[in-house]
Amino acid sequence: MNYRMIARLCAFCLLIEAAFMLIPTAYAVYAGENVQSFLIPIAIAIAIGLPIILFLKPRSKSLYAREGWFSAGIIWIVISLLGALPFSFSGMFKSYIDCFVEIVSGFTTTGSSILKTVEQLPRSILMWRSLTNWIGGIGVLVFLLALMPVSEVDMRSLHLLRAESPGPTASKFVPKMAQTAKLMCIIYFVMTALTAIALVIAKMPFYDSILHAWSAAGTGGFSCKNLSIAYYNSTAINYILGVSMLLFSVNFIVFFNLIIRQFKSILKNTEFLFHIAVVVVSIVLITININRLFPSVGQSVEHAFFQVTTIISTTGFASTDFNLWPTFSKSLLLLLMLMGGCAGSTAGGIKAIRSVILLKTARREIGRLTHPRMVNPVKIGGKIVEDAQVRSVMVFFIIYVFVIIASVLLLSLDNFDFLTTFSATMATVNNIGPGFGMVGATGNFSEFSALSKLVMSFGMLLGRLELYPIIFIFAPGTFKMHFHEMTGDRGKRRIGKRQEG
Amino acid sequence: MNYRMIARLCAFCLLIEAAFMLIPTAYAVYAGENVQSFLIPIAIAIAIGLPIILFLKPRSKSLYAREGWFSAGIIWIVISLLGALPFSFSGMFKSYIDCFVEIVSGFTTTGSSILKTVEQLPRSILMWRSLTNWIGGIGVLVFLLALMPVSEVDMRSLHLLRAESPGPTASKFVPKMAQTAKLMCIIYFVMTALTAIALVIAKMPFYDSILHAWSAAGTGGFSCKNLSIAYYNSTAINYILGVSMLLFSVNFIVFFNLIIRQFKSILKNTEFLFHIAVVVVSIVLITININRLFPSVGQSVEHAFFQVTTIISTTGFASTDFNLWPTFSKSLLLLLMLMGGCAGSTAGGIKAIRSVILLKTARREIGRLTHPRMVNPVKIGGKIVEDAQVRSVMVFFIIYVFVIIASVLLLSLDNFDFLTTFSATMATVNNIGPGFGMVGATGNFSEFSALSKLVMSFGMLLGRLELYPIIFIFAPGTFKMHFHEMTGDRGKRRIGKRQEG
Repeated sequence: MNYRMIARLCAFCLLIEAAFMLIPTAYAVYAGENVQSFLIPIAIAIAIGLPIILFLKPRSKSLYAREGWFSAGIIWIVISLLGALPFSFSGMFKSYIDCFVEIVSGFTTTGSSILKTVEQLPRSILMWRSLTNWIGGIGVLVFLLALMPVSEVDMRSLHLLRAESPGPTASKFVPKMAQTAKLMCIIYFVMTALTAIALVIAKMPFYDSILHAWSAAGTGGFSCKNLSIAYYNSTAINYILGVSMLLFSVNFIVFFNLIIRQFKSILKNTEFLFHIAVVVVSIVLITININRLFPSVGQSVEHAFFQVTTIISTTGFASTDFNLWPTFSKSLLLLLMLMGGCAGSTAGGIKAIRSVILLKTARREIGRLTHPRMVNPVKIGGKIVEDAQVRSVMVFFIIYVFVIIASVLLLSLDNFDFLTTFSATMATVNNIGPGFGMVGATGNFSEFSALSKLVMSFGMLLGRLELYPIIFIFAPGTFKMHFHEMTGDRGKRRIGKRQEG
Repeated sequence: MNYRMIARLCAFCLLIEAAFMLIPTAYAVYAGENVQSFLIPIAIAIAIGLPIILFLKPRSKSLYAREGWFSAGIIWIVISLLGALPFSFSGMFKSYIDCFVEIVSGFTTTGSSILKTVEQLPRSILMWRSLTNWIGGIGVLVFLLALMPVSEVDMRSLHLLRAESPGPTASKFVPKMAQTAKLMCIIYFVMTALTAIALVIAKMPFYDSILHAWSAAGTGGFSCKNLSIAYYNSTAINYILGVSMLLFSVNFIVFFNLIIRQFKSILKNTEFLFHIAVVVVSIVLITININRLFPSVGQSVEHAFFQVTTIISTTGFASTDFNLWPTFSKSLLLLLMLMGGCAGSTAGGIKAIRSVILLKTARREIGRLTHPRMVNPVKIGGKIVEDAQVRSVMVFFIIYVFVIIASVLLLSLDNFDFLTTFSATMATVNNIGPGFGMVGATGNFSEFSALSKLVMSFGMLLGRLELYPIIFIFAPGTFKMHFHEMTGDRGKRRIGKRQEG
């Protein structure tokens, strides 16, 4: 393992995080709030990061696939450890564990909160909280790749992007990876700005607009109001955020195609079409199901639209207390939680493309019952999906289900009702935010035990980084590997003569 | 498709069912209950079955794989339609749909009941109800293959056994399939008799002992008491039935190995060892979890043992109201519902062998993260599991999850709470019986809508026949196939000149 290069990447990411912290620091100065909460973490980031970058030169700048995973996993844990410090210094959280859960929830764009009363926090802290949603949405490594000098970026850094980007493959817009990262950042920034401007026009206060635009763009769902979006009680705001969340749950390649006017590619994009179809069908079904709860069809459509987009984009804002909705709507929303948005977006879940591949595989298998000898490959957008990829999607899904089962079992030790336990798992592993029952739109995660909070943090990281980086860090084989590499024991196992000697 | 042979098999199965009906008929005569409820269905079975067997001679006795599936699916639907008649004639059910749900629940060894007060039914009807658990446990086709004259049985009838037997492959004890079926029937009969004798010794009334032995052997779970086994409040009975259910959830090949004294084979049987390990660990965890609910550790162990064996064997008896247990125990029991017993037993669920293969596949994949170039095949009992089989187990699991999702969505239209909806799905698709919430140990399925009852019947059949026979019958491709075969249109599609002509 190229430990020096991994340390260097960590250091760069810490500095980028420190740079982002300057934004709430500036706000704290402007609003006369406590600036130290941010200055100390910034100082720590510089004190650790700068010496590593200056003095620990890596022998090679190459990173192999597993090093990409390892880096991504370690970086996300490191930036979370640092990012939790402003929360901790604010004195508004019960323990560092609570701060860590809240920041992991932020960076993984989950948006589950352990706070009972959001409004009591200093506004600069709330700003940092929502900003982590925005940073985590596209991923800190994407910022890094966009900013890094070209000499730092090796062809192999694609593995880095792959480890952090949602979806079975990292989509490159253009052949050069650093340019792709830059383009992604530009699209991300422009769309976030447009959302903020639209919210201001719809008469949301300026500060709130910025924060909600960040949370919506990252599909995170942190709000500066305890009631979330229901606080504003505005149809315009509901629709603006609904459309915005829907857009951010779409593969960014669609916007790139839009910019270069390749409209045909968009209409051939199976994942995009499937995603939109699921959204439309879900809105229709939920509108019918909740219609008797609202005075007019218009309001039913509004809340169905908002709740479907916020759940399938895995944002987790609330426009109304959907905990009171009928069981069918809740079950459907739980399914949408699992499915999530498109690959290459900021959304969580198993991603639309994987759902499509799984559904097509199931359909092919059923087709084979009647035509056993038919060669009938799974196709996406006219192209054959290789068996190896179908297989890896199936394995991903199975491990995902195992993770959900393990999380439900561990959370159930706290003995809350089953809907709370199950939906808390779905809400964290799929990076949604609120669930149902006690963790519903008006609830929070504060009552869970420390063990459950750690399990949920772990679940959020597993979901956001799509299992492998986090599993890799904690896999028993990894510890052995580190041991062998550190002690220069490489290859001895391969020769396999140790037991004899 | 060899329609004549399929019709012939249906006819045989109807006659076997009629023969089984003679048992409750005899009891009805002895107890002075209404005999017509049984005589009319028996007459119908003979009137339909006999002419088919006598006059509709098939041209060939061969059956291909898909014909095996089709036969199994059709036969199970046909015997359910006939088997529901005694319930219907008894006048104790609200509608024929209710009768059909109850009989499907019987034959699929689910044991979910729509009856509010079981004790009100005539005892001969209750006898038929429990007998269907016993018939369905091993499968009506196994009886057929055991009874059929050798001339009727072609090598290809293995496909029949395969379509009905639980597990990814039909285990043959001996090279000749008919002999395997006979041996299975003998083991089944002897173990059922032993259970009944043990229950009589433990002072359960004779009639109750027979019925509970049938239900336990089939891992069905129908009881002649509304309170199920909790009615007897006997530690001895709880342990006898617990051990019995555990034995019936084990692959019958283990007993065959026991008879021919191949003890080594048993200790090398990965599925068996995994199954026992899961049972032991679950009992320990649940005992700890429920300990404060019972006055002594002995009682906690007793109820944990009973409930784990009844759920993992997918029987669904109740020794206590486990609806009141902590969420962890409930979540664990829901997981055991999904896992089910061993292949080649009478239990439902996805089967221990599939769980083992899925777990080993996940572990291999995680191992590959650290050693990407390592060739590391999945092994069961020292033998390599072929990639094709791993793949088919993964596809099975994925379709199974889709079935569960679809069932939850459809049942949630009735707007009962989520635990009721989710556990009703798990209880029916996995052939358990009771779930939690409204359908818990003291509840029943009577309040569900007709649509939900049909969905659940469908789910029970999908679970018992392991998806493909039932999916095959209703697949769109199957209808096309029938149409082409009936109109002699064979092969035209293959040539593919229709559109041009």
